[in-house]
Amino acid sequence: MIKFVTTNDGKFKEVSEMFAAKGIELERLNQPYPEIQADSIGDVVEYGLKTIPAGEGDLLIDDSGLFIEKLGGFPGVYSSFVYKTLGCQGILKLMMGWTAREARFETCFGLRIGGETHIFHGKCEGVISTEMRGKGGFGYDPVFIPKGQRRTFAQMTVKEKNEFSHRGKAARSAIKSLLKESGDE
Amino acid sequence: MIKFVTTNDGKFKEVSEMFAAKGIELERLNQPYPEIQADSIGDVVEYGLKTIPAGEGDLLIDDSGLFIEKLGGFPGVYSSFVYKTLGCQGILKLMMGWTAREARFETCFGLRIGGETHIFHGKCEGVISTEMRGKGGFGYDPVFIPKGQRRTFAQMTVKEKNEFSHRGKAARSAIKSLLKESGDE
Repeated sequence: MIKFVTTNDGKFKEVSEMFAAKGIELERLNQPYPEIQADSIGDVVEYGLKTIPAGEGDLLIDDSGLFIEKLGGFPGVYSSFVYKTLGCQGILKLMMGWTAREARFETCFGLRIGGETHIFHGKCEGVISTEMRGKGGFGYDPVFIPKGQRRTFAQMTVKEKNEFSHRGKAARSAIKSLLKESGDE
Repeated sequence: MIKFVTTNDGKFKEVSEMFAAKGIELERLNQPYPEIQADSIGDVVEYGLKTIPAGEGDLLIDDSGLFIEKLGGFPGVYSSFVYKTLGCQGILKLMMGWTAREARFETCFGLRIGGETHIFHGKCEGVISTEMRGKGGFGYDPVFIPKGQRRTFAQMTVKEKNEFSHRGKAARSAIKSLLKESGDE
């Protein structure tokens, strides 16, 4: 059994459903771990994994961020703090007057299986919308439109969102690797 | 000799001058250390000190943040990242339309002397200005007016700023404690 270490309900739901669809059950470990201030979410994940005692067994941790080009990568690694303080409205305010609205979501999964660490990345390019739209998803989903789409992540079903999303891509890589290891693929 | 661990030129100048004025010389150790994502700068400092090897001898580290009330404490612990990405202009944009402009600067000094840790806090209440003013200081100084003053930190001399400032207050506490320990006071 792999423990998914996260305090975020929406994230646990999204990820555990993707893994369950491939026959991999995730148990939730609802506790925080030290997250470092870093330039990349990959660094946050690698550092975080090291701080969790080996006794916890097989683990999955995940970090994600929204990187807005015009804002020099803001909110980036600190997306969760910025969401709690400024929210989607703060992002829209910062983007006021800008027509260049390119942004990307990034996810990094860190898996520790039998003491060995594996890192998986997922990316989703898109743009910041000019207003909040939709009730689905969580976090910045109401203001992010994936490339080639007209709807925000929050206007999509979980299944639709996972097809495009950074987290969906990282999850598929992680699942593929796990199934290979267990000989199921 | 105490090593002040910082990659910030402006900070080293400000702090080393205050210590030098009381006869305490600081050597600069221009290298980064792991900074954790936390709710308070005190947590960042305590964690940071623990990550620096004992072999480095006597140490001083400092973390500071600007906490804006209307923005739920943003940019807070992440002030340095937010400064690099959004700058003072981003703060002014986020504050557009708000008349409640209360904010505070906080500094925390962590001293490790002979293996023992001492923590000192300094705080400065004030407001966010409506435009950037002044060329002095660094970081958010051009948009911060300390309580009871009409000028921003960036419009003051280093000496004036240190009288009011969060960093000045924390430095005075730390210096007082050091002089007591060495029997100079």
